[in-house]
Amino acid sequence: MAMVSELGINLANEHAQVVPISLFVAILCFCLVIGHLLEENRWVNESITAILVGCTAGTIILFVSKGKSSHILTFDEELFFIYLLPPIIFNAGFQVKKKQFFHNFLTIMLYGVTGVFISTFIISAAVGTIFSSTDTVCTLQVLHQDETPLLYSLVFGEGVVNDATSVVLFNAVQKLDVSRLNVGALRVIGDFLYLFSLSTALGITAGLLTAYVLKALCFGRHSSVREIALMILMAYLSYMLAELLELSGILTVFFSGILMSHYAWYNVTESSRITTRHVFATMSFIAETFIFLYVGMDALDIEKWRMTKLSVGNLMGIYSSLILLIFLGRAAFVFPLSAFSNYMSRRTERTSAISFRHQIVIWWAGLIRGAVSIALAFKQFTISGTTSDPVNATMITNTIIVVLFSTLVFGFLTKPLISYLLPHHAIRKNLNRQESKTPMEDMNLPLLSFEESAATNISRAKESLSFLIESPVYTIHSYWRRFDDAYMRPIFGGPHSRQTEC
Amino acid sequence: MAMVSELGINLANEHAQVVPISLFVAILCFCLVIGHLLEENRWVNESITAILVGCTAGTIILFVSKGKSSHILTFDEELFFIYLLPPIIFNAGFQVKKKQFFHNFLTIMLYGVTGVFISTFIISAAVGTIFSSTDTVCTLQVLHQDETPLLYSLVFGEGVVNDATSVVLFNAVQKLDVSRLNVGALRVIGDFLYLFSLSTALGITAGLLTAYVLKALCFGRHSSVREIALMILMAYLSYMLAELLELSGILTVFFSGILMSHYAWYNVTESSRITTRHVFATMSFIAETFIFLYVGMDALDIEKWRMTKLSVGNLMGIYSSLILLIFLGRAAFVFPLSAFSNYMSRRTERTSAISFRHQIVIWWAGLIRGAVSIALAFKQFTISGTTSDPVNATMITNTIIVVLFSTLVFGFLTKPLISYLLPHHAIRKNLNRQESKTPMEDMNLPLLSFEESAATNISRAKESLSFLIESPVYTIHSYWRRFDDAYMRPIFGGPHSRQTEC
Repeated sequence: MAMVSELGINLANEHAQVVPISLFVAILCFCLVIGHLLEENRWVNESITAILVGCTAGTIILFVSKGKSSHILTFDEELFFIYLLPPIIFNAGFQVKKKQFFHNFLTIMLYGVTGVFISTFIISAAVGTIFSSTDTVCTLQVLHQDETPLLYSLVFGEGVVNDATSVVLFNAVQKLDVSRLNVGALRVIGDFLYLFSLSTALGITAGLLTAYVLKALCFGRHSSVREIALMILMAYLSYMLAELLELSGILTVFFSGILMSHYAWYNVTESSRITTRHVFATMSFIAETFIFLYVGMDALDIEKWRMTKLSVGNLMGIYSSLILLIFLGRAAFVFPLSAFSNYMSRRTERTSAISFRHQIVIWWAGLIRGAVSIALAFKQFTISGTTSDPVNATMITNTIIVVLFSTLVFGFLTKPLISYLLPHHAIRKNLNRQESKTPMEDMNLPLLSFEESAATNISRAKESLSFLIESPVYTIHSYWRRFDDAYMRPIFGGPHSRQTEC
Repeated sequence: MAMVSELGINLANEHAQVVPISLFVAILCFCLVIGHLLEENRWVNESITAILVGCTAGTIILFVSKGKSSHILTFDEELFFIYLLPPIIFNAGFQVKKKQFFHNFLTIMLYGVTGVFISTFIISAAVGTIFSSTDTVCTLQVLHQDETPLLYSLVFGEGVVNDATSVVLFNAVQKLDVSRLNVGALRVIGDFLYLFSLSTALGITAGLLTAYVLKALCFGRHSSVREIALMILMAYLSYMLAELLELSGILTVFFSGILMSHYAWYNVTESSRITTRHVFATMSFIAETFIFLYVGMDALDIEKWRMTKLSVGNLMGIYSSLILLIFLGRAAFVFPLSAFSNYMSRRTERTSAISFRHQIVIWWAGLIRGAVSIALAFKQFTISGTTSDPVNATMITNTIIVVLFSTLVFGFLTKPLISYLLPHHAIRKNLNRQESKTPMEDMNLPLLSFEESAATNISRAKESLSFLIESPVYTIHSYWRRFDDAYMRPIFGGPHSRQTEC
């Protein structure tokens, strides 16, 4: 008897989980196909598709559940921070072209760190740093790493550092008590530096450890499965450890990604290399789509709307002012900082200055508030997805609206804008598309572009030696490269030291 | 104020999740390294390592938590059925050599289906089908698909069909009311046939659909990421749907795996092929290790032990009798069935008869009770991992003990036994190991073995045509192949129809 009842409960539990998951997976598949079919389309991109599909799904569920709820799962912010965010950021670190990234490191930090600080203070303390974290994924889908390397690495790099900064800043702001705000600013900066350095160190350690273990124990000898498993697990572990130590998991996993692609990647078998690159890309792809889907659904959450005791007029006022703030807040640092970095680079006679058109693209790219904003909002204003306080509800709805608006409208205009600002780039892009029609090319492409970036490092290093006198950045880089080839690569692996002893 | 308290709760929530996950991931990494180091060792294998590591971890946690609990997460059977089981089974279907599998299909069904039925009735109704589901992973690690193909596909095939059968049978037994047991048997068989056919059909549909979509829309043209994502998601969706419709998700996902590797796999780009194969292997590898780890930890769960109000003597009695029953229950059908299938194959003049030594290996392979047993036990006797009833507690501890004992002792003896029964095989194995020391070989090996199995199908088909008169099995197979080449492959893709229109 007891057993039967237990069984009943068990089945109930099971279905409570099985139904939403199957639904979500089905919708994900649908999004995937749509996204593929709209690939040629120059107006719509992946995230917009996901959001729109999410909205439609939400409305359907709304009708089916007779206006009870619009989403299948309630958004537990843990779901985001534990399962969805790590793959996205890790993949970012794993796939980034390291040379470009570190070449523009200073500029990126300028944008990422200073940017958040400035726009945080402009976008009032009330809204906090939620809207300072930008989502550049949308723009990156339009920019090409090989065609506009500088622009790409700036936008991308800012995106990452910026995510990290705003999470850090967000936690910091939460910690400090408002009574002693004069001391606050210093403490925030202190906290930031502390967290930034520690998180980075942890990430680097994880990456190096993985590389060393893979190299020393020659995992490839027995099975490439273990190699892949180890890389994935170690990356994930580094993130979780960072969260555990209340550091910025994002920064940690990002740097562990960079180091794994720089060292560990060379210590695994050929098939593992291909696999890892595609797996990480796929996981992050799924995670992103999932988030945007959810945002789409959550936009129709009746409960939250009812709870916000504000007239439509007021809401509109809030939203428009928020978006205006975002516009200003971003403009307020993008253009000055660009000017500054241009001035610096002119001093050091670096050829690659940031043209005004590029500045506009950078400014634009950051206007889009993405998944991280949502997650931060949910983290602050709800206990695991549910809220009771009307003020909190308002905050969340605000966030969602801003994200929706920015992603849809700005995202919608991104491709046209860029093809208007960088017409040459747009043409090149179309050409590429024509070429990559053949599967053969496309299928080697990812590997090639990666191999290339790894193989030609040496030649690049030689190049950079010629600039030695001209640019301090190059000097640092060439020093690093010498050190890397002399000490790091022999220990942790790289293109030179192909695991011969195995 | 309210916000701060909420934040506090949030952090608490977060850590409640973060700590166990990080711990588990860390232990997983550790297992991985150990498993790699013990690869040469002929006594210990992956699952044993995992269990032992789990035990040690359990004891440590036991001391740290001052005897409160021995495991980090409580085993929610959903965790198993929703996240861990699908990858294992799907990978099984994806990697199996289809020709061998379907060649011995009848024999496999004999073992898998009839076997479970027989041993279920021998291993009393009280214990139910929990112990009828065997875990042949352990033995498969010793057998080689290329060296003893017949034996391998028998042991493996039984493992899969058997899992499915016992899950089906298990649900069926739970459903039927004990009052009308005379009708029960028929209903069970009816249920089984119904579930078996429907689950298979669903799996095949999912596989074909994926293959068709991939082929028709030429996903590879734009990104191999989408291809991979689609395959993974569709496979998972098929499983969830099956569970939703209360079919056997295992069978469904197994067959979708088979069809994906037979059709869909040819419609994706080269890199996606390599990736998918390794990803599925890796996911199932991680899942298995995770389960065995958990079993190891759970063995030390004090609560359950305290709850079982039985003297040590009684317990020992139960365990030994259980294990004896398993011995007999398996012997009772392996040897008769082998004799029967040999008789059949002699009739049809098939050369490959099952030698007595092979019969012993098959018998032995099935003695090991694995992760599925545990999951079934937890599913039946607990509500999401926690139990209050002493009888249920006893059942669970019984299961765990039997699984531990069989995995440790039998698993421990498997390699020696096999190398004694099949000395030639053992020697060959060692030679192989010597050769595969070089990473180059090992890194091509997985791919080769797969390519081969795919490429040489045609030649095999030709072979089989020569047997046309001799064996009905071959006739069926050749008919199937003709049909496949003529109608299926052009639509769903295969080695002949390399996506030219993309």
